[in-house]
Amino acid sequence: MKIHFITGNENKVEEAKKKIGPLGFEVIQKNLNPPEIQSDNLEDVALFSAKWVSERFSEPFFLEDAGFFVDSLNGFPGVYSAYVFETLGYMGILRLMDGIEERSARFAAVIAYHDGKQIKSFGGEVSGHITQEPRGSNGFGYDPIFIPEGESRTFAEMSAEEKGRVSHRGRALEKMQEWLKEKDTTDR
Amino acid sequence: MKIHFITGNENKVEEAKKKIGPLGFEVIQKNLNPPEIQSDNLEDVALFSAKWVSERFSEPFFLEDAGFFVDSLNGFPGVYSAYVFETLGYMGILRLMDGIEERSARFAAVIAYHDGKQIKSFGGEVSGHITQEPRGSNGFGYDPIFIPEGESRTFAEMSAEEKGRVSHRGRALEKMQEWLKEKDTTDR
Repeated sequence: MKIHFITGNENKVEEAKKKIGPLGFEVIQKNLNPPEIQSDNLEDVALFSAKWVSERFSEPFFLEDAGFFVDSLNGFPGVYSAYVFETLGYMGILRLMDGIEERSARFAAVIAYHDGKQIKSFGGEVSGHITQEPRGSNGFGYDPIFIPEGESRTFAEMSAEEKGRVSHRGRALEKMQEWLKEKDTTDR
Repeated sequence: MKIHFITGNENKVEEAKKKIGPLGFEVIQKNLNPPEIQSDNLEDVALFSAKWVSERFSEPFFLEDAGFFVDSLNGFPGVYSAYVFETLGYMGILRLMDGIEERSARFAAVIAYHDGKQIKSFGGEVSGHITQEPRGSNGFGYDPIFIPEGESRTFAEMSAEEKGRVSHRGRALEKMQEWLKEKDTTDR
């Protein structure tokens, strides 16, 4: 089954291909650059963008909005993680966390899928903590400073497959894939 | 002349009243909470929101989007200044600037005005620099850490009238007021 991933981020496409490619989905990147609203709710952002795309593109697609939420920074950088990464980088987060012991954080993602008729959303989260120093060179964004629960390595020290098994995006993709499989069975 | 200011921020309303009230404008706050898009361009954000409001509200109104741009932080917090203020406060900016000598920054504002038929935008900017420590208790947001060019006091050490004479918002309001006055003369 062909499915379009509306994003300008090739790293995300790579992760999606690794995750649901082996399950029979051909992920095709499409860069439509939909407007994203300012909101502290990832699902609101994803649904608004998906609605915009659905009015311009008739094939099945999904898009995703993700954020990195640091507890002791009141959830910063949150839904504006991409912009904060572009301006401050992960070193900005480490600087803000300087001397702070409470280092818990989480990644969250919401996927909005449109089958040509309706929009359905799927969420995924992963808790963990922030390192004192960056480690690893895989992945992208804040991966070098985040260690997921139950692990000793940062996301940037894992392969895309390993990251996909525990990551926010991996979990959201898994839910979408399960729902599509079930839908496929029901539709027959 | 009655004019609605679409905003949830009472500090901004107060500044607008002080600035254009004496010039014959009755500023009325209206909180419609339009969606704001994520963009690094203030004008795009303001125009998108103004279009949304104009489809729901038929009286003359203006709204405003403003940002605080720190040069050595690549423009951060920029268009997301309100969100960054809510999560990190101005102390977060001071922490990010710790040990950094280049402290130039600017405030920018874009006003989008709708007369019932068309939208017109007005920009205002003020350059200055970031203090080492917060000073003053007037104003709001990043005012306690910003000293405008040619001044020795922070925005938070000035009265609303004084701030309005040099501030980004004051300058944008001034342009709007001049344009409205001219339009009024032409229309007669």
